[in-house]
Amino acid sequence: MSVLERLPRTPVVVLAPDKFAGSLAAPAVSASMMRGLRRVWPEVEIRSRPMADGGEGTLDAILASAGGTRHERTVSGAAGQQRRAAFGVLETPEGPTAIVEIAQIVGMGDAANLSVPVGARSSRGVGELLRGLVDDGVRRLLVALGGSSTSDGGAGMLEALGAVLLDASGARVAPAPSALARVERVDVTALDRRIEGCHVTLLSDVDVPLCGPRGATAVFGPRKGVEPHEVAAFDDALARFAQRTESALGRHVMGSPGAGAAGGLGFALLALGATYASGAEVVADFVGLDAALRGADWLLTGEGRSDAQTLTGKAPLVAARRARKMGVPATLVSGALDPEALPALGLEFAGCFAVPAGPMTVAAAMADADALVADRVEQVARLWAAAVLRS
Amino acid sequence: MSVLERLPRTPVVVLAPDKFAGSLAAPAVSASMMRGLRRVWPEVEIRSRPMADGGEGTLDAILASAGGTRHERTVSGAAGQQRRAAFGVLETPEGPTAIVEIAQIVGMGDAANLSVPVGARSSRGVGELLRGLVDDGVRRLLVALGGSSTSDGGAGMLEALGAVLLDASGARVAPAPSALARVERVDVTALDRRIEGCHVTLLSDVDVPLCGPRGATAVFGPRKGVEPHEVAAFDDALARFAQRTESALGRHVMGSPGAGAAGGLGFALLALGATYASGAEVVADFVGLDAALRGADWLLTGEGRSDAQTLTGKAPLVAARRARKMGVPATLVSGALDPEALPALGLEFAGCFAVPAGPMTVAAAMADADALVADRVEQVARLWAAAVLRS
Repeated sequence: MSVLERLPRTPVVVLAPDKFAGSLAAPAVSASMMRGLRRVWPEVEIRSRPMADGGEGTLDAILASAGGTRHERTVSGAAGQQRRAAFGVLETPEGPTAIVEIAQIVGMGDAANLSVPVGARSSRGVGELLRGLVDDGVRRLLVALGGSSTSDGGAGMLEALGAVLLDASGARVAPAPSALARVERVDVTALDRRIEGCHVTLLSDVDVPLCGPRGATAVFGPRKGVEPHEVAAFDDALARFAQRTESALGRHVMGSPGAGAAGGLGFALLALGATYASGAEVVADFVGLDAALRGADWLLTGEGRSDAQTLTGKAPLVAARRARKMGVPATLVSGALDPEALPALGLEFAGCFAVPAGPMTVAAAMADADALVADRVEQVARLWAAAVLRS
Repeated sequence: MSVLERLPRTPVVVLAPDKFAGSLAAPAVSASMMRGLRRVWPEVEIRSRPMADGGEGTLDAILASAGGTRHERTVSGAAGQQRRAAFGVLETPEGPTAIVEIAQIVGMGDAANLSVPVGARSSRGVGELLRGLVDDGVRRLLVALGGSSTSDGGAGMLEALGAVLLDASGARVAPAPSALARVERVDVTALDRRIEGCHVTLLSDVDVPLCGPRGATAVFGPRKGVEPHEVAAFDDALARFAQRTESALGRHVMGSPGAGAAGGLGFALLALGATYASGAEVVADFVGLDAALRGADWLLTGEGRSDAQTLTGKAPLVAARRARKMGVPATLVSGALDPEALPALGLEFAGCFAVPAGPMTVAAAMADADALVADRVEQVARLWAAAVLRS
């Protein structure tokens, strides 16, 4: 009789991974994990709750677990190109709630958005989609801010909602990062104020302010294409634009957590009255993670790479902390682990594991992630089964 | 109160890894594993039994666990150079037992042995050492066959023990692979027959015959420098020499398991009356693995790379099977795992894990193996602790 046949009962396992960026969406990670578990326990009860933290994949994660419908609309991409952008609508007790994922409109993952320099990219399409949703009667919005290619402080979005940027001579200024240094006044006379009457929740894993050394440009600008020598000028221009916007809208939010998310889109939405929330916490609520953990034996989570950032409230940490509160051990299975962060990660998880089966390149690990996740989870489950039996 | 503080009692863990070839000797692997365990359970009871399978490290593994004394003697290396070779002596109930590790004399790890082509390398030094030990009164020998650079069928060793190789004209033939094709007769008149009166046990993880497609030259020749087009000639020469040797000594062992170990040294020793044994099984006995497993909760083993070969009786498999017999789960922590072999490995171990924390090069994994092993074992232990507690 094998060790596994002697297990006292079929375990109940909650799968709540984030995506493995660049290789597997969160539902795919969950599917791989499930395959690995079934090799050990064919009858295992699995509660799959793929996670997200406000970045790419947030829309799919919420729709997958919470239901709702998926829609598309044509809006402007970051380079001004027309594109189809997906969004979701959930029926909630408070009425229809739209889920807007910034990455679907101006995301880094779409090469067309990157076809113009960051100084020319615009968040206009976000404003177009929001306006359309408000036209449709939506009054509750979840806006997932991660993964944007823009760095315009939300100026493009504000213009799409009716604001006008003016220079010292009263001439119109284009809402592009390269022009924001000339903004003297933001005219909100024609702004569609209905957006301020909406309940807008910003989902992000980024709690940085708009400007300064921890701000949007300093931290995220370089990966969007801001050259090191341009960072100060971008930051100054954003600050100038933001001060004028704050004056016009009467809200002072440049220093608020999340203002620096999505190249400053966070700032503009906060200035319109949105509230900031931890993306992973909101997603955990929407996917019903707590309910799934009730009576479960084990939680598996993971992400492409776990490092010190994970500990600042990324999806795996949120999942593990909720599991701990309910007495459920949480194990981390990620694409890679930062050895420097491992001692701290080890305190949050019942074991942290990377998927490679040995030395290999990043490209190979990403290409083979589906099989590697299943294999690693299988082995982790074998150890788990043996330990449970031993005790 | 942390999860670990709530553990019912301090676990007892047996550490029985093989070496990580090229980076860590088995006792060093065991030390790294211990460090990882102590991070989770400072009071863990550890029984360290580093393993070996008859290859390099066998001498140290036995001396580390079984006691005994380490000695050195000057003998010929594979290229004829003089070198100091380590060996061990154990006091056993049956009298002193010498432990001879072929790799200490003609090993692949010593560049001097590789300074001449494989066709000119000789196992003479092995014969010198054996003769010296017999002179000293030793009558029991363990000969660990792994890691040799030679492929002379043990001809050099036999000559050092007094045998003479002759060609058809009665002229002396050098005991080198390149000359063995000319051997017509092996004259054992002057052979030191005392060696046949000794109790000689061959330790190997290689059970191949001397010749043929599964033989010494076909399987191991290329890594020693035999060119593909030379394999047939080498194999024919070995067969010729071996037939003459069998005739002279009256034992027919060319096809016996282990005859092809150590470039055919296995054959020559079998022809002298030695017996073949699984290196890992003998080492497990000498290090007292079964006694260590008694009352233990968990066994950790590992090796540099685990693959289909592991399942043919390498040290981790032997350790795991002994553990299973005693009801102790065995977990594998290796430098790398062959994904192809993982399904089969998974049936033998309570979880198979590779040490890399993410994509990395083989060189980096080897250079950092000490820290990687400790980190991986720490995480495996955290999972174990959580699972035990959960049950």
